[in-house]
Amino acid sequence: MSHVTSPTRPSADKLARAALTYLAEPGDPALGALLVICSPAEVVAAIKADMLPGTGPGCGDTPASRAALDRALGRWRARLPGLPDDERIADTNRDGIRLTCPGDADWPAALDHLGQARPYALWLRGHTDLRLACSRSVSVVGSRAATSYGGYVAGEIAADLGERGWAVISGGAYGIDAAAHRGALAAEAVTVAVLACGVDYPYPAGHADLFAAIAAQGLVVSEWPPGRHPARTRFLVRNRVIAALGCGTVIVEAGERSGALNTARHAANLGKPLMAVPGPVTSAQSAGCHRIIREWGANCVTRAADIIELLSPLSVPDALAPGGGGPHRRSGPDPDASRGPSRDDLDPDSARVLDALPARGGAGTSTIAVEAGVDLDTVLGCLGRLAGYGFVERCDRGWRLRKP
Amino acid sequence: MSHVTSPTRPSADKLARAALTYLAEPGDPALGALLVICSPAEVVAAIKADMLPGTGPGCGDTPASRAALDRALGRWRARLPGLPDDERIADTNRDGIRLTCPGDADWPAALDHLGQARPYALWLRGHTDLRLACSRSVSVVGSRAATSYGGYVAGEIAADLGERGWAVISGGAYGIDAAAHRGALAAEAVTVAVLACGVDYPYPAGHADLFAAIAAQGLVVSEWPPGRHPARTRFLVRNRVIAALGCGTVIVEAGERSGALNTARHAANLGKPLMAVPGPVTSAQSAGCHRIIREWGANCVTRAADIIELLSPLSVPDALAPGGGGPHRRSGPDPDASRGPSRDDLDPDSARVLDALPARGGAGTSTIAVEAGVDLDTVLGCLGRLAGYGFVERCDRGWRLRKP
Repeated sequence: MSHVTSPTRPSADKLARAALTYLAEPGDPALGALLVICSPAEVVAAIKADMLPGTGPGCGDTPASRAALDRALGRWRARLPGLPDDERIADTNRDGIRLTCPGDADWPAALDHLGQARPYALWLRGHTDLRLACSRSVSVVGSRAATSYGGYVAGEIAADLGERGWAVISGGAYGIDAAAHRGALAAEAVTVAVLACGVDYPYPAGHADLFAAIAAQGLVVSEWPPGRHPARTRFLVRNRVIAALGCGTVIVEAGERSGALNTARHAANLGKPLMAVPGPVTSAQSAGCHRIIREWGANCVTRAADIIELLSPLSVPDALAPGGGGPHRRSGPDPDASRGPSRDDLDPDSARVLDALPARGGAGTSTIAVEAGVDLDTVLGCLGRLAGYGFVERCDRGWRLRKP
Repeated sequence: MSHVTSPTRPSADKLARAALTYLAEPGDPALGALLVICSPAEVVAAIKADMLPGTGPGCGDTPASRAALDRALGRWRARLPGLPDDERIADTNRDGIRLTCPGDADWPAALDHLGQARPYALWLRGHTDLRLACSRSVSVVGSRAATSYGGYVAGEIAADLGERGWAVISGGAYGIDAAAHRGALAAEAVTVAVLACGVDYPYPAGHADLFAAIAAQGLVVSEWPPGRHPARTRFLVRNRVIAALGCGTVIVEAGERSGALNTARHAANLGKPLMAVPGPVTSAQSAGCHRIIREWGANCVTRAADIIELLSPLSVPDALAPGGGGPHRRSGPDPDASRGPSRDDLDPDSARVLDALPARGGAGTSTIAVEAGVDLDTVLGCLGRLAGYGFVERCDRGWRLRKP
């Protein structure tokens, strides 16, 4: 298992998963079922050979499923001409874009709860550790046609969450999504945009700068390979990833038919806390929020503190679980894991950043970067990680050591 | 048991209960306990004789409770000089004010759920049947310091409830209460103001006209006798009656420390559906509503239809229960009660009003009054009763026959 930022050549498994993001649509049930019984490399080889992988009595093979697989094979093969060669796929660090796969250090375990609908892999733009970011995170989504009320509330809640060390996950759309990302950015917090197109594809076009800022301070994430354009159905498929990545999902504004309710449904189906922000009953953009509070039992939340109160018992196990985001993961259950990592367990950059914090009072990120001798991006990533582990916290002046 | 509008002399029990409203504060635990073991007349006689009613082994008599009763006796006797003579109390129809007592035809059975805190009696101003009105009713309360949003929503919800044949109960205060009463009045629906002072005491003074309008179309109700002024503690004691009279309670706006939350608590304690209307999370006047949705499990409601949906299964049994508001009550359980009364069961005025409705289309209340040959007040009361029984319904032009 190679580290994501390692310059070494990716494993065959990783290359195959990267290829699958080009060949198949995410959430393709035929591929999901196939990956239960075959390795990704076997599937890719089978697609290239136009020959389905060996099936047998143990594979639940029926004439109907065989026919479905045949059709799927046709779909996947149709995309073979657009598949980059292995050399190009292997260069996962080009243009600041990298790939994370199931089993990788920064692969969020929460995605595995999607079962056969688990992403084949995720393309990432940015340097933040996705798994760590998601260990204390909230998905904040809502209408594109947000009101000024909704935009204000989404921004405030996201900034407050960020101030308290929580990452904000959203979909990069106009309206509530953008307000949530911007609130987190303003708080110098980690924010993750999960797109329905390539991480280098600026959609909506007006958000090119926003995505650049998100990549600099957090992550732009996609199941689709670089260059892939968005499509209507892709947004719905993408929503399950937004719901799965956050410890809980908050709907800030949603009309009766808002796509945000699709994300809400995914969160509920995953058994994750679903929350909604109320608004004026006279506002159509709050009607969906009120409905899911009334009919789905979504929690009524009005501020970041409500959200954290609901999520806090849930965030700890994932954040400190074995292999749960620290650079020094353990390969099996560790009875001491609940204690969290010690200072000695930190990666060199994080240890340097921690040392750079003043013993008393706080310091701004640029000061810390200079003191630690690392660049600003790295400092932000390290501070997020250190906050996640409880070493540091936000303060008026920037960051300070947290009393044990 | 005499009919409330009967000109005959009230029973000794009723006279004694009227006297108790002058002598004791509502909800006095000593009196509540005493009324479990003594008749109201025995209690009044004991107060006048300055001698506690006979107590014995069966009465749970202890030195401590004896001392509490002695103190209570002192309190009640202190008010004897202000007690009107029997002749005046007996004239319960003076100034359009009358009295209803437990066991009376129009006494709402829901009040009996208050146990020992049940009102000794209720003073009524207006001609509507209180029990019938309460059989399909919603208590709509909230902040005095309502926002224009809250006032608008309270008025809309109350008018919609009224249009659909539901009575609106509130506390006659400025803000949400007044908006709710006015909304019901605008829909020509029954509305009930439960005051913390005499029904003839205009508090707040600016609501004298509103109370007159409520009395003309519904009821002004109080546990305190005519002329009694309001006091801070009386509002809190009064709130339990607001909560008990409605099939459910809706809080439209409430700050974190609003008295409306006291009414909400009473509703919850009585096991009645508690509902709250959400609002902007940026509004302090909605903070109490959001809190009871989040922490008390209050239902999030945004319009009258939501409220009716929640209450409808509950309203039917009370509305059509034996002795449940119709003029021809039965003295015991009736297996056919759930069918509702037939046309032949109606009182003469209601039968006349029902006959006066056109076979097709609707008619205004004045037209119906002329056609039926009864006065407007009576028509309004009858229409409310007929709507409660499902004979008539509101329409754009006034009232129309409801298809069976």
